[in-house]
Amino acid sequence: MTEFLIKNPTQEYEFLPMQITKSDELLRNILHERRQKLASLIDFPVILWSGRSIPRNYPALVYPFRASSHFLYFAGLPLENAAIRLESGKLELFLDDADPGSTLWHGEMPKRAEIAERIGADAAFPMSELKARGTNAATIALQDSSIRLQQSDILDRSLAPSKSPTGIDLELTQAIVSLRLSHDAASLVELRQAAAVTVAAHKAGMRATPTAKIEAGVRAAMESVIISENMTYAYPSIVTVHGEVLHSEHYHNPLQVGDLLLADVGAESSMGWAADVTRTWPVSGKFSPTQRAIYDVVLAAHDACIDKISPGVEYQDIHLLAARIMAAGLVDLGILQGNVDDLVEMDAHALFFVHGIGHLIGLDVHDMEDLGDLAGYEAGRVRSSRFGLGFLRLNRVLRSGMLVSIEPGFYQVPAILNNPETRAKYEDFVNWDELGKFADVRGIRIEDDILVSAGGREVLTGELPTKALEIEDLVGVSA
Amino acid sequence: MTEFLIKNPTQEYEFLPMQITKSDELLRNILHERRQKLASLIDFPVILWSGRSIPRNYPALVYPFRASSHFLYFAGLPLENAAIRLESGKLELFLDDADPGSTLWHGEMPKRAEIAERIGADAAFPMSELKARGTNAATIALQDSSIRLQQSDILDRSLAPSKSPTGIDLELTQAIVSLRLSHDAASLVELRQAAAVTVAAHKAGMRATPTAKIEAGVRAAMESVIISENMTYAYPSIVTVHGEVLHSEHYHNPLQVGDLLLADVGAESSMGWAADVTRTWPVSGKFSPTQRAIYDVVLAAHDACIDKISPGVEYQDIHLLAARIMAAGLVDLGILQGNVDDLVEMDAHALFFVHGIGHLIGLDVHDMEDLGDLAGYEAGRVRSSRFGLGFLRLNRVLRSGMLVSIEPGFYQVPAILNNPETRAKYEDFVNWDELGKFADVRGIRIEDDILVSAGGREVLTGELPTKALEIEDLVGVSA
Repeated sequence: MTEFLIKNPTQEYEFLPMQITKSDELLRNILHERRQKLASLIDFPVILWSGRSIPRNYPALVYPFRASSHFLYFAGLPLENAAIRLESGKLELFLDDADPGSTLWHGEMPKRAEIAERIGADAAFPMSELKARGTNAATIALQDSSIRLQQSDILDRSLAPSKSPTGIDLELTQAIVSLRLSHDAASLVELRQAAAVTVAAHKAGMRATPTAKIEAGVRAAMESVIISENMTYAYPSIVTVHGEVLHSEHYHNPLQVGDLLLADVGAESSMGWAADVTRTWPVSGKFSPTQRAIYDVVLAAHDACIDKISPGVEYQDIHLLAARIMAAGLVDLGILQGNVDDLVEMDAHALFFVHGIGHLIGLDVHDMEDLGDLAGYEAGRVRSSRFGLGFLRLNRVLRSGMLVSIEPGFYQVPAILNNPETRAKYEDFVNWDELGKFADVRGIRIEDDILVSAGGREVLTGELPTKALEIEDLVGVSA
Repeated sequence: MTEFLIKNPTQEYEFLPMQITKSDELLRNILHERRQKLASLIDFPVILWSGRSIPRNYPALVYPFRASSHFLYFAGLPLENAAIRLESGKLELFLDDADPGSTLWHGEMPKRAEIAERIGADAAFPMSELKARGTNAATIALQDSSIRLQQSDILDRSLAPSKSPTGIDLELTQAIVSLRLSHDAASLVELRQAAAVTVAAHKAGMRATPTAKIEAGVRAAMESVIISENMTYAYPSIVTVHGEVLHSEHYHNPLQVGDLLLADVGAESSMGWAADVTRTWPVSGKFSPTQRAIYDVVLAAHDACIDKISPGVEYQDIHLLAARIMAAGLVDLGILQGNVDDLVEMDAHALFFVHGIGHLIGLDVHDMEDLGDLAGYEAGRVRSSRFGLGFLRLNRVLRSGMLVSIEPGFYQVPAILNNPETRAKYEDFVNWDELGKFADVRGIRIEDDILVSAGGREVLTGELPTKALEIEDLVGVSA
């Protein structure tokens, strides 16, 4: 890293104006369309903040900037320290031109006026003008507390957290949710790009497995694909031989013959749109019979759930379908015993399928999770208190344009299966001896991203094989 | 990404205790030694906070956690939401045991008591006990404003920013600076690991260049090496054909024959220790004569500055040596004209060598830059107002155990060279026509990490070639 000398150059220098391209025209059109839709839902002004870079070690060494997803949706570009004001379909951009000195650090930066033209803003002002335009505007609170203070100051009122907004902020939230739930053409271009790169990353991870020594080696092969496409990851990658640890962020474990490797890795496009894919493959290139048996149960659930996706279907019914298929499969294997419907009713499947069948995907990998359940749950619905349902993050009627994950899984989580209370409760329904034969299956998950479409569905990540034999082919045989 | 069902399991489950290994013993010893040294310098208690994970999109989707470097130095482990209290060489750990539910998300977590044993703490408490132990303690303010609020609350007083501490906080800062300036054996183990991985990353970047289409392709090859060693990057990678943009964080530019690629990429070890290396190489595998000529001037400065490193030497003199060599080289090439000493005196070299010769390296890549100039500048010294000196971040007498970067560079920054005022001032000293012949040299930097040692110096990154011909060999020839 270098350090630069001129702190306050007083001159500004010429630079090439940003060229307005065809894709800018598309961007302007889609942003215009989103604003019009918003204006048809609410009749008060809205101010959305982008956020700022956050220090990692010291002020000049920051984490990679990620703009607020709500801002990105309406502003189109990941502008730092910016705000937009929307009213009656009009867009005002608030952004300070970069200090001329920063040209030296960061190169020639487009000026406010050029950015305003690029995104089709009706007017553009420095940030200092925002205060005068804050009256009666609604907003969504950012995660960053220092920006929240700024929001309160500009709006001259206190602000509830984004998951529990009130008044016009709640109305705004509901309006934005209704827009962001169904993806438009421009979003889909980005979502497809993220999906394609994610598919390539998983293939690279499989191919890298025979020569990798530790989990990190496979992670590197996967993220390398994402980085080389000039994207970032949409969430911290999970690449682990301990699939039973749901959010493992360790990568130090050695890869051993007999292990299954679970990789949950997704790319985020340059404009912030996510993909979310999981595959599980044998380190050796060959599933053991027990691994293969469970894998095929999970895959059956995966395939059946995807087949069921269609506009008008209750997402919760898809979850329950997965639960039944998992339970039935485990009965066939002798791990569970009893009537399938009864087993699901008593949440026996959830001993192993310990999470929901999926969630919304969009500008966030759990789309709009900053809004708590306001996006995931249909108005009037609340989380179930049931062991096997309360963890479901999406409980809506599917409609065309929604992008959802389908991700059934099987896990042997010691904290669950060794819990004496649980063992007592399910004593008659789990054959613990049979289960013991499947000790080499710690965790399996198969996850794809599915677009709900008028015709039913489209698996955006469908290029990536799911069948055990195809997976084995991609991994090849370890040395 | 998955979602998990059990929010408040009431049971705790057994897990394997962390094994105390030989390396833990080394860790305990070195932490003990650091505490004793601190106790010999100050006689009041100290509380250091580690920090917390920071949301990126929504509360559960966070940036990778990075503990405060001061905390890491005395606690040894990157513990989240923790604090340590040091007094008279004793160590108290404050940390809450993970919620049992988090076992399901993050696997079995070591308990406070085990971590305390691992780092050799004399006592360990939940965070709630910290308030009672806060009286009259000194601290260093963190960058995260929500943690700073917590610090103020625990200490029951206001807190100045870390770059301008007062009272006992200033005394503590000065004591920590004096410790962290010179690296002990344990630090050096980590710094050498980071350096070795960084060297491998640069070699991979060079080898990947002939097949890469855009900058991001080379970046991917480099970061892949870092990730595969289960490390992270110490700072945002710079991999650019626009070397004249000092902190370019764009990676979309195509690699074209005739371009120089500048890569400033460094690994951070698992315990947080940094490396910082820059190389510049021709995309085609072959420097043009003009590129080679400037490269050799920068390399001459690099080599001479490294040779001059020794305990007792003023770092500023090394910077001035680089300035003279750069000026002399540019005179030889006909770009500058006049007497070398005069040119340096009037900062003519700084038209092209636009930054300082380097900085401290340690747990931060600009070590202790959170403390402003309190680490970089010897007590009583302040920044020069001179164009060619004011940007120097390190102005101390070198002593054994310091790790510094040496990173001379040559840049054609349009904002500087097209500035009419600058052109007028240096009218007689720059041959603009000659300079025009070097248009294919936008930016060159060569940077290594050098340990000041009793015998003089050791280049920790010395395995990575610097000579033009060796660089060309590593890149190979583009297809």
